[in-house]
Amino acid sequence: MDLQNIIIEKAATAKKAAAKLAFISTEIKDHALLAMADALEKRSEMIIAENAKDIEDGRKNDLKRSYLDRLMLNEDRIREMAEGLRQTATLPDPVGQGVYSTIRPNGLEIRKIKVPLGVIGIIYEARPNVTADAAGLCLKSGNAVILRGGSEAIRSNLAISSLLAKAAYEAGIPEGALQFIGTTDRKAVDYMLHLNDYLDVIIPRGGAGLIRNVVENSSVPVIQTGTGVCHTFVDASADFTMAVNIAVNAKTSRPAVCNAMETLLVHQDIAADFLPLVNAAMKEKQVEMRGCKRARIYCPDMIEATEDDWATEYGDLILSVKVVADIDEAIDHITKYNTGHSETIVTNDYNNAHKFQRRVDAAAVYVNASTRFTDGFEFGFGAEIGISTQKLHARGPMGLDELTSMKYLIYGEGQIR
Amino acid sequence: MDLQNIIIEKAATAKKAAAKLAFISTEIKDHALLAMADALEKRSEMIIAENAKDIEDGRKNDLKRSYLDRLMLNEDRIREMAEGLRQTATLPDPVGQGVYSTIRPNGLEIRKIKVPLGVIGIIYEARPNVTADAAGLCLKSGNAVILRGGSEAIRSNLAISSLLAKAAYEAGIPEGALQFIGTTDRKAVDYMLHLNDYLDVIIPRGGAGLIRNVVENSSVPVIQTGTGVCHTFVDASADFTMAVNIAVNAKTSRPAVCNAMETLLVHQDIAADFLPLVNAAMKEKQVEMRGCKRARIYCPDMIEATEDDWATEYGDLILSVKVVADIDEAIDHITKYNTGHSETIVTNDYNNAHKFQRRVDAAAVYVNASTRFTDGFEFGFGAEIGISTQKLHARGPMGLDELTSMKYLIYGEGQIR
Repeated sequence: MDLQNIIIEKAATAKKAAAKLAFISTEIKDHALLAMADALEKRSEMIIAENAKDIEDGRKNDLKRSYLDRLMLNEDRIREMAEGLRQTATLPDPVGQGVYSTIRPNGLEIRKIKVPLGVIGIIYEARPNVTADAAGLCLKSGNAVILRGGSEAIRSNLAISSLLAKAAYEAGIPEGALQFIGTTDRKAVDYMLHLNDYLDVIIPRGGAGLIRNVVENSSVPVIQTGTGVCHTFVDASADFTMAVNIAVNAKTSRPAVCNAMETLLVHQDIAADFLPLVNAAMKEKQVEMRGCKRARIYCPDMIEATEDDWATEYGDLILSVKVVADIDEAIDHITKYNTGHSETIVTNDYNNAHKFQRRVDAAAVYVNASTRFTDGFEFGFGAEIGISTQKLHARGPMGLDELTSMKYLIYGEGQIR
Repeated sequence: MDLQNIIIEKAATAKKAAAKLAFISTEIKDHALLAMADALEKRSEMIIAENAKDIEDGRKNDLKRSYLDRLMLNEDRIREMAEGLRQTATLPDPVGQGVYSTIRPNGLEIRKIKVPLGVIGIIYEARPNVTADAAGLCLKSGNAVILRGGSEAIRSNLAISSLLAKAAYEAGIPEGALQFIGTTDRKAVDYMLHLNDYLDVIIPRGGAGLIRNVVENSSVPVIQTGTGVCHTFVDASADFTMAVNIAVNAKTSRPAVCNAMETLLVHQDIAADFLPLVNAAMKEKQVEMRGCKRARIYCPDMIEATEDDWATEYGDLILSVKVVADIDEAIDHITKYNTGHSETIVTNDYNNAHKFQRRVDAAAVYVNASTRFTDGFEFGFGAEIGISTQKLHARGPMGLDELTSMKYLIYGEGQIR
């Protein structure tokens, strides 16, 4: 059987499993999640041995150190994966929750309830923990899932997914509800992107190139996630200590993630006083500073920023800095360069806080807080499958609720129209 | 300027307009909707004159009579369009409505509110009333809209859209918020499908071919609408009079629409008694009956149904009929052939009613009522932009709420992570 047919067959099996999984009790799903967690911990040696082969290949292929770091699994990381699954088991099950109900003038009763999406495709890169996280969230929300991880982590992902699928099946989850595409052939992705008869949605997780490929080529509906060119705007009335703390946190607490700041915008009235402060604090954290012309007047040690800098998600200890005339120029800059993820203003001016939150078009718009909070755990969802940067279906952190669709149930007594 | 650049420019203008329109008050939007309604009525002669040219061309091009009927405008139909706009003005504005708010343990206050999607592309066929309906709903929900109607209605659509755009602009709506693509060049659609930098969603409205083209080729997110292979299952315990009434209503009250029934499934235990009844009632309404082998034992005058019949949306006075062994065979048949639109069971058996609603995967699942109720007006939304048959973002009738996205507003006092 050729690759395309293998993938269609997997998808068809997943669709059949999804039809059953939609009606499996929360009790069985939670029991399966706990069994999956146990399986990972019990077989951690095997997972680490398989992972070592991926790491070895990665070294041979000159993978970047940061990439190898993310790829690497040890006892602690496997325990974290298992704990993530146990945590998901404690979350409320969204399936069947009522959204509203009403009685129409003709006596028809209409109920709207949450139902699983069906079959979810996840296409992702290096981090093998996504395999366990995504499997757990999809299962809990009653969805079948087809995972397609990157070739660098193929052996780790195969080890993890086969353990998870076996444990889930033994706990009563329909066979085929959790599947992994175990080939590194890139055509597998192309085939997945056109499985409209079987997949209800594809969620890409990874770098900009991966996401662009999926968005541009998929005929299956896509939820776009994860690119974040996030800004912090320090207004004239900002408390300087608060502003420095927020900026340093937003840039340096975890520079590789999508809710980290990439550009700092500073009101011209405070630039002379504030920029040297924030520049010194960033330098202490080894941040490379790239400033506009006006910023470099106050901080000549900054590298000169180019047009490209404003549109770049560095994912690294690099920060671009721009002095703006006022809040309107700040909002215009953000409107031009942001990716619809997270934006924050540091201010003590009520009108500006209000204006910034109204006018900036992004999933999460903050006043006086770090953009780093845009995250399913921090928002109180208990888990997260990704952060949507599109407006359709879900926006911002996606938890279990965002992995559901709706269904209308209508109760009549012979009504016709 | 070539067509692609013309369309990009239109889209860029729409995006700028959308950024302003998102903050226009409900008062101004409602005032604009009323002005748009007045403009249509005042200039009805001009619209009818332009429409007459489309009709003339249609006759020359041998358009089907039913097609010409849908295309034709008169004073009554223009008044209906205007009334639709006035009705939309009375609906509650979804923009800014709170979805929830919470305070996190760290003191961060999180609010989730409804915001417009941004720019909506609508690609549609013959019926020129879609131009006014879609423009009104998009405007009320704070969205800019780019309309692309079929070539058969090009003059009617141009007349309507230019009147609407002018009236809206004069009432304070940003210029470019309502645009029509006035070319019949099919490439215009291809260009629209890849305007990811400007369009937030594309909604196709029309036949299966149009929808397939949009779904398969668009890189902009799509909401799939409108194809309906809907079933009525008459269970063994059904009240025969109710079942005949529901079946006749679902098939004949408006056979061309997507919530009309295409296939009748009948429990074998009642087939001998029920089929002749429903067959006679349908014949009286000039319905062509196509039955499975078992159905034809009881009604030999039925044409023999082929495999193709089960998957066909006739949109006409044709009905396929199948005898099934039990509710499970009925559900299996529906699972195989339905399009996720509307399904109904006629029964007096509690367990079967419950099972049918749980197991059938469709936007709307009825007990003892006609599938014809799946409609924004009948569901109490006051209006409808289409009926989604996909699971992402919206499912079933889409009103103003379904034309919005979400945004998180987060209020801090210096929180860092």
